[in-house]
Amino acid sequence: MNGWNRQKQDRDARLGAAATSASRKIVAADQAKALLEAVIRPGDRVCLEGDNQKQADFLAECLAAVDPQRIHDLHIVQSGLVLQAHIDLFEKGIARKLDFSYSGPQGAAIARALTGGRIELGAIHTYIELFARYFVDLTPHVALIAAVEADHAGNLYTGPNTEDTPTIVEATAFKSGIVIAQVNRIVDTLPRVDIPGDRVDFVIQVDRPFYVEPLFTRDPAAITETQILMAMMAIKGIYAEYGVTRLNHGIGFPTAAIELLLPTYGETLGLKGRIATHWALNPHPTLIPAIESGWVQQVHCFGSEVGMDNYMSARPDVFFTGHDGTLRSNRLLCQTAGLYACDMFIGSTLQVDLMGNSSTVTTGRIAGFGGAPNMGSDARGRRHPSPAWLKAGREAVDEPTTLTRGRKLVVQILETFGDKMTPNFVETLDAVAMAKDLHFELAPVMIYGDDVTHIVTEEGIANLLLCRGPGEREQAIRGVAGYTEVGRGRDPVAAEDLRRRGIIRRPEDLGIDLLAVSRQLLAARSIEDLARWSGGLYRPPSRFRNW
Amino acid sequence: MNGWNRQKQDRDARLGAAATSASRKIVAADQAKALLEAVIRPGDRVCLEGDNQKQADFLAECLAAVDPQRIHDLHIVQSGLVLQAHIDLFEKGIARKLDFSYSGPQGAAIARALTGGRIELGAIHTYIELFARYFVDLTPHVALIAAVEADHAGNLYTGPNTEDTPTIVEATAFKSGIVIAQVNRIVDTLPRVDIPGDRVDFVIQVDRPFYVEPLFTRDPAAITETQILMAMMAIKGIYAEYGVTRLNHGIGFPTAAIELLLPTYGETLGLKGRIATHWALNPHPTLIPAIESGWVQQVHCFGSEVGMDNYMSARPDVFFTGHDGTLRSNRLLCQTAGLYACDMFIGSTLQVDLMGNSSTVTTGRIAGFGGAPNMGSDARGRRHPSPAWLKAGREAVDEPTTLTRGRKLVVQILETFGDKMTPNFVETLDAVAMAKDLHFELAPVMIYGDDVTHIVTEEGIANLLLCRGPGEREQAIRGVAGYTEVGRGRDPVAAEDLRRRGIIRRPEDLGIDLLAVSRQLLAARSIEDLARWSGGLYRPPSRFRNW
Repeated sequence: MNGWNRQKQDRDARLGAAATSASRKIVAADQAKALLEAVIRPGDRVCLEGDNQKQADFLAECLAAVDPQRIHDLHIVQSGLVLQAHIDLFEKGIARKLDFSYSGPQGAAIARALTGGRIELGAIHTYIELFARYFVDLTPHVALIAAVEADHAGNLYTGPNTEDTPTIVEATAFKSGIVIAQVNRIVDTLPRVDIPGDRVDFVIQVDRPFYVEPLFTRDPAAITETQILMAMMAIKGIYAEYGVTRLNHGIGFPTAAIELLLPTYGETLGLKGRIATHWALNPHPTLIPAIESGWVQQVHCFGSEVGMDNYMSARPDVFFTGHDGTLRSNRLLCQTAGLYACDMFIGSTLQVDLMGNSSTVTTGRIAGFGGAPNMGSDARGRRHPSPAWLKAGREAVDEPTTLTRGRKLVVQILETFGDKMTPNFVETLDAVAMAKDLHFELAPVMIYGDDVTHIVTEEGIANLLLCRGPGEREQAIRGVAGYTEVGRGRDPVAAEDLRRRGIIRRPEDLGIDLLAVSRQLLAARSIEDLARWSGGLYRPPSRFRNW
Repeated sequence: MNGWNRQKQDRDARLGAAATSASRKIVAADQAKALLEAVIRPGDRVCLEGDNQKQADFLAECLAAVDPQRIHDLHIVQSGLVLQAHIDLFEKGIARKLDFSYSGPQGAAIARALTGGRIELGAIHTYIELFARYFVDLTPHVALIAAVEADHAGNLYTGPNTEDTPTIVEATAFKSGIVIAQVNRIVDTLPRVDIPGDRVDFVIQVDRPFYVEPLFTRDPAAITETQILMAMMAIKGIYAEYGVTRLNHGIGFPTAAIELLLPTYGETLGLKGRIATHWALNPHPTLIPAIESGWVQQVHCFGSEVGMDNYMSARPDVFFTGHDGTLRSNRLLCQTAGLYACDMFIGSTLQVDLMGNSSTVTTGRIAGFGGAPNMGSDARGRRHPSPAWLKAGREAVDEPTTLTRGRKLVVQILETFGDKMTPNFVETLDAVAMAKDLHFELAPVMIYGDDVTHIVTEEGIANLLLCRGPGEREQAIRGVAGYTEVGRGRDPVAAEDLRRRGIIRRPEDLGIDLLAVSRQLLAARSIEDLARWSGGLYRPPSRFRNW
């Protein structure tokens, strides 16, 4: 081979091998396995598209069915390891090495496979971090992706669930890799072109639509009064005080409660138009009442959400949509928006330690990171000021100057106790023990304490920006940790001093009457309410329908 | 207008207005001004594509020629404000507000226009930060872009200079904006599709190619022995010690010297394959010898570089290229790669203060930031370990644990004195005085001191990671600041203590013989040498040709 053109020659050889099974760009579904066996080589870096939402599930099953004698030791480089087929790759020896971001339902299976030596883990990433490595040292040789429609030239319409596809395809196609797409339909004319056909080598029409998980749907019926209290504190004590207009919400009931309180409680505080106007967010159904009430100016989405497509098509002033009328999502761009153009990230977590480090690791489960560490970190390359960002930065120092940079507000919202009354505040994260057990160089910390600015529990808000030194910080965290052991370990004098200085704030300090906390405050109290708010445009998945 | 569809109705109204002057997608060049007057409205956010390299220069001139009675008070949101036409927009009142990243040659004109009240400045951004805001609160209403070729459906081929185009078009087209492209040629069949035609509203063929600035070309003939000494220290004292494989270089002669020393000095140190293998980098001509010597495995590029296109087409194993054989660059993706997938940024600066803050601002000039603050910052959302990153993180603390995260290596390389013997080390950055004069909320700091890990001068390397506290940090900086006033203000005892602890390292501490420092070490000593290394594939722009 020519010394400078080996990749393109290798690509041609693979396409040549595929020619025996696929003479054209369009390949029959029953030839899919043969195609994969023809174009994939042992040791290849393979990206099987799939994040926390859309999945190239047919191609995943095909890859899990190839002959491990022919294809083995693959290096899987992809956002999500969430399907049984993904795990099967490792169980069968088809794949060996793994670099990923999110596991969701397969967290326990990954932990078992790691312990059993069937997965050799590169690292757990945030999405944008893994995408970044696609262009540096983890460029895929083969990408197996999913789209809604293809035309005969291989142009792809990914529709509302565009998500990771453009990034995966760009990394693979422009480095002489092979791109194979499963599509729901092959049509003569696409509604729009999301991926140009000259980047796509093979298209396979599959007789079932690619799978999409409704991960960002939270049923308002399950929101508790404790969560409503925390949401009220967050709105009054953080959103309003910093004037947060550009933000991202993580998944979870407390943030769903905030979304549902904007048009009610937020309205009574006179905050409409002053907070929460511009979002980097998945299309949470619980945002519908705020949108319908005119709170939301613009939302850019990582992905879509099952049932929300018609609603978003009918609200193009708010959402990014194509000229065809449907949503255009893009995970990389939305993660970038969350990192650099949002003033706040607020999300739930499962464990917080005395330094404010948090983790969603629980014993025997590797949940991955997804997007939270990216959104929940201070973008130190940011140079544009905003009132919220400047105020946060100035709180962290005694004498601000024009050299004092701002800070991203990173808020952790959680109840002091979780399921089965396990304390959410701990001396040491479970992630530390896991790192030791599995010989990780780094404990899988979701958000580091030095990036967290506020912790909200039912007991109050701890403003970590105002703390001077680790001692005060620890007392501030203990001071909102309720009746957990960490909370009971507080120094009562120190806690009262912090409260006097406004570092710890109780509901009563914020003028929130505990008796007024009620589910009646929620703009929608059920999925049916959300559908009604949307004028019937939101079509909840059947598992959420009970009327 | 319908309450939820105003943007699309507005878009239709603009397209309707354009129909009088342009009945089809292809518009004649002499109709361009009329088209702009038809589709742009006062107060619009407009992105005139142009960064530090490519420019939609024809469209910039057309916009500067519109009737200010019809089009005024535009809000310019774009990477670069570098052409005379860009400044004219503000001088004529066509534009009023500005959010940008980079000014280059117009830095003095911007400062004058700001002082004169003709520009209302939003903020100076890093590229990726401005792109992020395109999806949150600075979405363009109109994008005026540049491509090499279009077909009759409006599909665009941007060729090697793809750069910002996909990001600008995505933000504009998917939020009901108008996209107008100037192209060098209209053809029947494109070499490849960089931008799908359904995102492009109008195409204008212009009788001269869009302008590209050869910003990243450094003539090896101008590299001094002082720069070679600094480059040797950086290679031996930083690249080798941390095992830096994934990196970005800023613009400048010291980093050009490093590139040219890899195949010579680096080879003698046995570092080939152990450092500098994977790059997020513009196609610096000075990297050619390292590529030809087999040092470089992969390079992803922000943009192209004048004269490098044929060379890159002939080296597809190293560069990202399309199936048509030419480079695919992408500024957003490469900035993301630099932020999240590189272990080191090294760049030159003009001023460093006692805390290590640096700036390229000089009196009366607003140079902008470009990409450096993004690349030169610690990505706190990063979760994947690498040896270089872990070592840097562990040096910064006394007792590392699995909760100790790593650090991006951020290296500033500069001579102690600059042009006309002005000291590069100062007590207070000129940027601070500028912020006061112009009432900026933030001084325009390029890289903040708390992100800098090493400073390299001809006097030595200061490792700021190993400093404990601001006092040591100041002495470490003074300790490499030579005969500047800052350098002469050092405490000699403290400096010797820092040297003993390896925090300050002199050339002799690194085993570098000052007598061996010579231009003979450069793998190429002229532009002609670079062209020769490339086998004639690199075609330097005429201004760099003197043979």
